[in-house]
Amino acid sequence: MSVSRAIAGLEAAVGGEHEAIAGMLAEGLSRVEERFDHQLRSDLPPVRDLVEHVERYRGKMLRPVMTLLSGLAQKGPGATAADLTEAHITVGAVVEMIHVATLVHDDVLDEAETRRRAQTVNNLRGNEVAVILGDYLISSAFHLCSGLANQEIALLIGGVTTRLCEGELLQLHHRDDFSLDEATYFEIVQRKTAELIGAACELGAGCSGAALATRQRLRDFGMKLGVAFQIQDDLLDLTGEERVVGKSVGKDLEKGKLTLPLIHHLGRADPIERGRTLRLIGAGASDDRHVDVDARAVRAALEKTGSVDFARASAQRLVREARSLLSDTLPASPAADLMHAVADAVVTRAF
Amino acid sequence: MSVSRAIAGLEAAVGGEHEAIAGMLAEGLSRVEERFDHQLRSDLPPVRDLVEHVERYRGKMLRPVMTLLSGLAQKGPGATAADLTEAHITVGAVVEMIHVATLVHDDVLDEAETRRRAQTVNNLRGNEVAVILGDYLISSAFHLCSGLANQEIALLIGGVTTRLCEGELLQLHHRDDFSLDEATYFEIVQRKTAELIGAACELGAGCSGAALATRQRLRDFGMKLGVAFQIQDDLLDLTGEERVVGKSVGKDLEKGKLTLPLIHHLGRADPIERGRTLRLIGAGASDDRHVDVDARAVRAALEKTGSVDFARASAQRLVREARSLLSDTLPASPAADLMHAVADAVVTRAF
Repeated sequence: MSVSRAIAGLEAAVGGEHEAIAGMLAEGLSRVEERFDHQLRSDLPPVRDLVEHVERYRGKMLRPVMTLLSGLAQKGPGATAADLTEAHITVGAVVEMIHVATLVHDDVLDEAETRRRAQTVNNLRGNEVAVILGDYLISSAFHLCSGLANQEIALLIGGVTTRLCEGELLQLHHRDDFSLDEATYFEIVQRKTAELIGAACELGAGCSGAALATRQRLRDFGMKLGVAFQIQDDLLDLTGEERVVGKSVGKDLEKGKLTLPLIHHLGRADPIERGRTLRLIGAGASDDRHVDVDARAVRAALEKTGSVDFARASAQRLVREARSLLSDTLPASPAADLMHAVADAVVTRAF
Repeated sequence: MSVSRAIAGLEAAVGGEHEAIAGMLAEGLSRVEERFDHQLRSDLPPVRDLVEHVERYRGKMLRPVMTLLSGLAQKGPGATAADLTEAHITVGAVVEMIHVATLVHDDVLDEAETRRRAQTVNNLRGNEVAVILGDYLISSAFHLCSGLANQEIALLIGGVTTRLCEGELLQLHHRDDFSLDEATYFEIVQRKTAELIGAACELGAGCSGAALATRQRLRDFGMKLGVAFQIQDDLLDLTGEERVVGKSVGKDLEKGKLTLPLIHHLGRADPIERGRTLRLIGAGASDDRHVDVDARAVRAALEKTGSVDFARASAQRLVREARSLLSDTLPASPAADLMHAVADAVVTRAF
């Protein structure tokens, strides 16, 4: 299972003395999974079947991992398993549920066929089912969230999810906009990807009693990590192999979605190169083999202007900034060490 | 504007002595509209443009009307405008926002082209934008809701919206299922349509301090009304004219959605008639003119087994039951009179 694999990887990265904290994380994540499944258990068999299918999408569980680790790290080096309260578990399930909902709807938007090596819901059961299943997941997340004693959490989640949708709408608005600038790109990514990861960190610490200033810094930490995560996703869509990434690749180009490497390239290339790349992007999309050829040619063009390296360096810089923010905010602890390791993994991952 | 037209219609139905209560309702609805617009106002211009488009979908505002009237009726004959609190207004905006979200996503599912005489979002801007705009509306509704002092409201809304999605998923599961029975039809409609109208009534009274038993009876009143509303919608899709209904008609047949008149017909027709109707339903869908011809033939077949009359009588019976429940629950008052008039309008409406 990929969560335990991911935890084993983290443990290896930070050394054997982190066995105890890795155990607390694993136990917490299995409680999150249980809450996730329990909340989605419908009395209607056809709904249960669909939910079982999307439960495979969970994968790395980055967001709940960050909630639980932020909660433990806030408690300092003496944190124990008992420091993961029911509220931490619920928040972990809520942020993951919202994330899975966006995956289900994104797959409709991207006409994607595979996700974490499984068929997408839209591919298997049609767009209609995928649209409503996403709605079911969003509603269930809010339902779960509004049962928490601390009402501020639901309010924060509501705001984050609304901005997440705004980010997606802004991205759709700029589809096929080949003059998209970096500022707008970052605006989109902040809302679409970074805010939810920021909230996962902020709320994890908040549920452990963190003061406002600490919560805000953990949100900033999570947001920087989230932007780095998205840039890495951009790079994987461009340079990754479907076999390794576990989902359809080359979808960004196909869907006219401008990513950081491409924006950098179009700003740096000479007019002739630029025109050539634009032709490459504009073509294809209807014939699978053509898209494949185009993607390879685009990749070669991006390498020539150093745009892949630029994007990679941007993501690495963000991770460095995030890590230094974390060191300045929370005391050193095994949980904080794991958070640093997760931050590194965001830009070294190949999936 | 259709809300003021609707209120004028109600006033005419109950007589001139209801001017004061109709005025309170109109004022309350304009506060609901303001809250609705304010909550959806994004700092991003492309999002603002989309929201302006869906604001036209508001139409009759049945759900907030029921929230406000339930709130006023709970206060009895002496109710004044001051009895409509901020909580009533927020709940009114929340239930309408969830309703509009379902319209936007339903139009994607139904491939509908017009809605309240305007182009649908999917028709105008594509399915992708419609999917995310619906998500934006759902999230905004929850965000607004979780700001209320009484946390139970968000919990109730979360549960209702989740069951609404389950109803839609159950309906999709039974698409093209020509042996769908009445029990499953009512199960779908209860969740998909009736629960939200029930919640609109329950919460309106609740915000006016109604006791649990009263709230539950008002929910039952609203649910009966909701089922009647859906049956009337089924009838309009079958027998209405697009010009009058203001949205695409004949979509249920085209999408393999079995409605009450059709279920009744298939259960009553002799084997030869039944086979003929099934052939009529199975055909078409790709060519507009063909669908039109089929719908007419289906209509004729349904008339022969008395299935249109049966569905109409079922809706009328539900409205009678709802009205008698209302009379038994709340004291006579101008607001209660308006609720009775709205209940009647549900089955007499042609749009």
